[in-house]
Amino acid sequence: MPPVFFNAQHSPIGAFASFTLGFPGARGGLGLELGKPANQSVFIGLESDQPHQYDVLPFYKDAEDEARRYDVEAVAPEDHQPKSAARLKPFAEDDISRDYQLCLDVFRAGDLTFRIVSPVLSVPDPRGGEVEELKRALLPAVLAEIEVDNRKGKSARRVFFGYQGNDPYSAMRRIDDRGEGRLRGVGQGNITAIMSDDPRLHSALAFSIEQAVEPKIDENVVFGLGGVGALVGMAPAGEVSRFRFAICFHRGGTATSGQATRYYYTRFFQNIEQVGDYALAHFNEYLQLAEDAQRRLDASRLSEAQRFQFIHAVHSYYGSTQFLDWLDEDHAGEPYWVVNEGEYRMMNTFDLTADHLYFEMKMNPWTVRNELEWFIRRYSYRDEVRFPGESKAFPGGISFTHDQGIANHISRPAYSTYELFGLSGCFSHMTHEQLVNWAVCATTYLHGSGDDAFYTTHRQVFLDVLQSLENRDHPNPSQRNGIMGLDSSRTMGGAEITTYDSLDASLGQARNNLYMAVKTWAAYVTLGEVFHRHGDGKQADAARQQAQRATKTLVSAMREDGYIPGVMFEGNDSKIIPAIEGLVFPVVAGCPEAIELDGPYAELLQTLIRHLKTVLKPGACLFDDGGWKLSSTSNNSWLSKIYLCQFVYRRVLKLPWDDAGRRADDAHVRWLLNPQHSAYWAWSDQMISGEAWGSKYYPRGVTSVLWLEE
Amino acid sequence: MPPVFFNAQHSPIGAFASFTLGFPGARGGLGLELGKPANQSVFIGLESDQPHQYDVLPFYKDAEDEARRYDVEAVAPEDHQPKSAARLKPFAEDDISRDYQLCLDVFRAGDLTFRIVSPVLSVPDPRGGEVEELKRALLPAVLAEIEVDNRKGKSARRVFFGYQGNDPYSAMRRIDDRGEGRLRGVGQGNITAIMSDDPRLHSALAFSIEQAVEPKIDENVVFGLGGVGALVGMAPAGEVSRFRFAICFHRGGTATSGQATRYYYTRFFQNIEQVGDYALAHFNEYLQLAEDAQRRLDASRLSEAQRFQFIHAVHSYYGSTQFLDWLDEDHAGEPYWVVNEGEYRMMNTFDLTADHLYFEMKMNPWTVRNELEWFIRRYSYRDEVRFPGESKAFPGGISFTHDQGIANHISRPAYSTYELFGLSGCFSHMTHEQLVNWAVCATTYLHGSGDDAFYTTHRQVFLDVLQSLENRDHPNPSQRNGIMGLDSSRTMGGAEITTYDSLDASLGQARNNLYMAVKTWAAYVTLGEVFHRHGDGKQADAARQQAQRATKTLVSAMREDGYIPGVMFEGNDSKIIPAIEGLVFPVVAGCPEAIELDGPYAELLQTLIRHLKTVLKPGACLFDDGGWKLSSTSNNSWLSKIYLCQFVYRRVLKLPWDDAGRRADDAHVRWLLNPQHSAYWAWSDQMISGEAWGSKYYPRGVTSVLWLEE
Repeated sequence: MPPVFFNAQHSPIGAFASFTLGFPGARGGLGLELGKPANQSVFIGLESDQPHQYDVLPFYKDAEDEARRYDVEAVAPEDHQPKSAARLKPFAEDDISRDYQLCLDVFRAGDLTFRIVSPVLSVPDPRGGEVEELKRALLPAVLAEIEVDNRKGKSARRVFFGYQGNDPYSAMRRIDDRGEGRLRGVGQGNITAIMSDDPRLHSALAFSIEQAVEPKIDENVVFGLGGVGALVGMAPAGEVSRFRFAICFHRGGTATSGQATRYYYTRFFQNIEQVGDYALAHFNEYLQLAEDAQRRLDASRLSEAQRFQFIHAVHSYYGSTQFLDWLDEDHAGEPYWVVNEGEYRMMNTFDLTADHLYFEMKMNPWTVRNELEWFIRRYSYRDEVRFPGESKAFPGGISFTHDQGIANHISRPAYSTYELFGLSGCFSHMTHEQLVNWAVCATTYLHGSGDDAFYTTHRQVFLDVLQSLENRDHPNPSQRNGIMGLDSSRTMGGAEITTYDSLDASLGQARNNLYMAVKTWAAYVTLGEVFHRHGDGKQADAARQQAQRATKTLVSAMREDGYIPGVMFEGNDSKIIPAIEGLVFPVVAGCPEAIELDGPYAELLQTLIRHLKTVLKPGACLFDDGGWKLSSTSNNSWLSKIYLCQFVYRRVLKLPWDDAGRRADDAHVRWLLNPQHSAYWAWSDQMISGEAWGSKYYPRGVTSVLWLEE
Repeated sequence: MPPVFFNAQHSPIGAFASFTLGFPGARGGLGLELGKPANQSVFIGLESDQPHQYDVLPFYKDAEDEARRYDVEAVAPEDHQPKSAARLKPFAEDDISRDYQLCLDVFRAGDLTFRIVSPVLSVPDPRGGEVEELKRALLPAVLAEIEVDNRKGKSARRVFFGYQGNDPYSAMRRIDDRGEGRLRGVGQGNITAIMSDDPRLHSALAFSIEQAVEPKIDENVVFGLGGVGALVGMAPAGEVSRFRFAICFHRGGTATSGQATRYYYTRFFQNIEQVGDYALAHFNEYLQLAEDAQRRLDASRLSEAQRFQFIHAVHSYYGSTQFLDWLDEDHAGEPYWVVNEGEYRMMNTFDLTADHLYFEMKMNPWTVRNELEWFIRRYSYRDEVRFPGESKAFPGGISFTHDQGIANHISRPAYSTYELFGLSGCFSHMTHEQLVNWAVCATTYLHGSGDDAFYTTHRQVFLDVLQSLENRDHPNPSQRNGIMGLDSSRTMGGAEITTYDSLDASLGQARNNLYMAVKTWAAYVTLGEVFHRHGDGKQADAARQQAQRATKTLVSAMREDGYIPGVMFEGNDSKIIPAIEGLVFPVVAGCPEAIELDGPYAELLQTLIRHLKTVLKPGACLFDDGGWKLSSTSNNSWLSKIYLCQFVYRRVLKLPWDDAGRRADDAHVRWLLNPQHSAYWAWSDQMISGEAWGSKYYPRGVTSVLWLEE
């Protein structure tokens, strides 16, 4: 039986919004700009064959009696209240089934089917002039349909879909109060709403869902003090009825602090009513697009376990996307593509950008260019570098910040919100890693997009990046070994870290870091190819020389017992899987010869194959359940990186995907569905011994898109 | 000793915002559009004579360690953290004193003085063209000052003022990141902030206030992930230092649903940075205005107990004010003055408007006209009327809705958010009462403002109101008795109620209601005067005839034992104080002869004097503590109405304010300061046996402004 009770995000593209559903209780709902589910009651129910008795999907909790606040002394405030005859009970869990797919999520229980539609679409480059396509892709709504099979019913049965909002600032309201009568719906302020254009439905507000569905007097569905809103209709006896809904989001005005931007979609949709109107008018079109996207995925050869993880990751990725339109003078009118960092809500965290890369290159490569260009013009900086423990400064060069802001606050130029000074652990600078990230993202973009103008425009940045990489190796060219040797002056006496900041020291320290070293090698390899292709021969040679040096250094770090320690040359003894992570870039950046097992870097590849075979064993980098353990010295393992390394393992290292591999996949699915810690958080990244404890509600799992390329 | 630990609202005018402070713990803070305190930690502290030891006002709670979210596996996440040497402890409660005044609220503890400045200003009519005065009055900020007496100190001491935000959508941020360097500050998104232009202060963000005040490395005060923000400075040894702050609020873009409006202040202040800039540039001016306003109050002859209650009420009134600028086409550009209903946040609840009337007539009478005109053009309706239990409909006429919206949702035309159908208790219609309210507010406005054009423009409404009042008495003119006899068809078979909806039935039922009857008499009296003054003799005579009939009816309802029951002629036996409430209107609407004890209504006045002497006794309308009990059959007593009736008692009925009166005043102060239920909620209205249980954080207490007229 496929799993049923886990939250999934159903999200428009670029709206930083999610209709989250699937975990029992008031644990889903219509979330806007949140790092977590909205924790609202969602009411989806159908009258049973007993009048006034309703079977409801279990995504709500009983409301407290709000009426008491208005009549504080009454012993029985319900005496003043419109009583409802309605009685609700949740469907038994065993009676509910779910078909969770890429763009359709379908719950079935009794005679009720609830279908959520969230198409996966490419976003056209806003500078391309495809206005209608852009509007279609950016619509800040997902769609839903309720189907009632009342063919055996003897009488019409009431059906409803609603929610209880929890915005601190604005009231729940009926949408019908406004507009020309075509739309009906309920919403909270101007930011979230459920609408329909089906004349068989009417909207209702009340203190409780019971009163909304069956008020004592029909006219009382207008109750403006009611915090529960629903659309309610009748499904006639003897037939199958379908009711369509748009689940809408809208944030008007200035969306960010620090710098003023607005949501790009506000160019097309002035308010949430316009969102609902468009969504419902184009319902069939979106349904078709959803089915098309699913059909394309069905053609892939993913296993069930892979397919679930990929789908789940895509759902959460879109929930973190936020497409903005710069308002402040310096860049007025410029598009600004942002992916928020799940529960942490940091904006365009660069080490995530480098992992979203593969998905965005497939869907809309211009977003990668947009991200890289914002890193150039607003989030680059120049530093000096120092050997550890020394105060003498040497020339550094260009690098890029860890992120561009947090929770709708755009950070000041040249500084992230995350990076601090004087540290050597979590919250220190990631200067070298983000420099490498810029290089590998840019080379991947160039190869995947064929956009040569990007190189022409930013050639100097490419040259500066190479120079900066070299300077961080050793100030004396003759002493360079191809990997990072000096820390940025921005650490102010501390040490640089990597994206694995919250894992153990084996992955956290940047200098002499194995993961970092292989990724640095990849930067040199792919930069070399780019320089070569564009006629910058001197730089091509320099980059390749560095790649060779890195190879030599890495091979030299191999221990006799068959692995390279997580931090090389420093007595560290961690065995790590992400040693192989960097090998993905020659694949995606168009350097196939670099990863030929008998090619120019054969020695490196053979060394890493041996490394991986050594570490991927119980007691080292496998959990008892067969799941992958990124580091032998940490129980914290990250699914996004596991996905990426699985791709490298099969596609680059040509290692076979046998029972152990399938056992790992199954374990990773169980990690995500763990009801104690994971299932509530939709897709999450940081798993401690198989439970989601960090990086929850996270976009990064779309590294699994690489599996489609195998 | 004056009381110290109670919340007070410190609010700009028309910004629906409050800097609430005074109740211990994280129970105050910067609240925007809330029906309650923001429940944020506010940090106001000074380094003690021990380095790194800070004495702090007790308005915060210890922060959880936010760092753990980012480093989920670490046994000791502080190992990765910038440690702070700072240690905070709250001042002992006994060491704190408070001087709470109309526009200045001053906390003193040790060498620290914290002063909040919130001037009481008249808002000029926006159509009058006084743009600078309007901008000044509408500035969405209050000001604050910290004074450090370090004359005996041997070294400089750190001082700070900050808060921990809790907006669900946006991050805490440094203001310094933006702008030209003059401003420094911390804020949350674009909506709240504390700023200064004092170059001795710097802004800081951190996970905890300790890290913000004393980071391990000074540069780390920029930490973008920090949810705690503060301005931090040094007070030099040997002198008294003062630091000035602006506590700012701003909601840009569309502020309401249902109909689109924006805050009127956004005409002058595009964003919160502009708010801070203006506030700080005009600090001295606002301080002067605050002191002037206080001085005017000092000249009044209020007792200490009266003074406290009036001040406290004014603070909470402003917290509920919201001045909007209509955006939707039908009324684009029209000013829209709204007072929200405290914890319930209903907008312009008409029975509150009628109580805010006296304060607004004193401060800015045009707001009364604005409210009345919105009731005419958007919130009036016409109905039919029915005798109780009968189905035959008779002509009704014009009336007005209970309110105009709730929590930033503007209600549809002709309907309130509150009123429901088919009820006879809480949430039923208040058709007759709101009709009377329009009449008494309009006649009061005409008299107080001298704005004869209001009558000319709306003469037909005045005529319709009279006709509607008469129709609700009896369809047959010869059978009219001057009071309400029929219920609106809008009740759909239910019964109309009054503003005392949540009190006992003795005040809730509108028909034959004693309170309602006297207020209806006042409507006829004051309408009669208005018609007479404007040459509409026929209507003047009709109104006066109705007033005479009401008098006769009321006098006839007098029981032999000296009181009129709360509901007349229906076997009810409640003794109620608000019998006298309506007598205020002849005073404020310019009909002094009507309340001459030997004038045309002498019989009514003598009857009500006797009534009040009968009921205002222990066992009836006095609580054991001497406080006033509005109804002998309810423990729910409302301070706003008590204040009003106290004014009538002394000013109209000429009854003496003796020890019993002063004992009542003292009891009412204790009710407001009750630490269990009241002190957290600033000024509240509905007191059950002396504890605030309903209508909390409420604007209505400004009825006490009438005391200034005695």
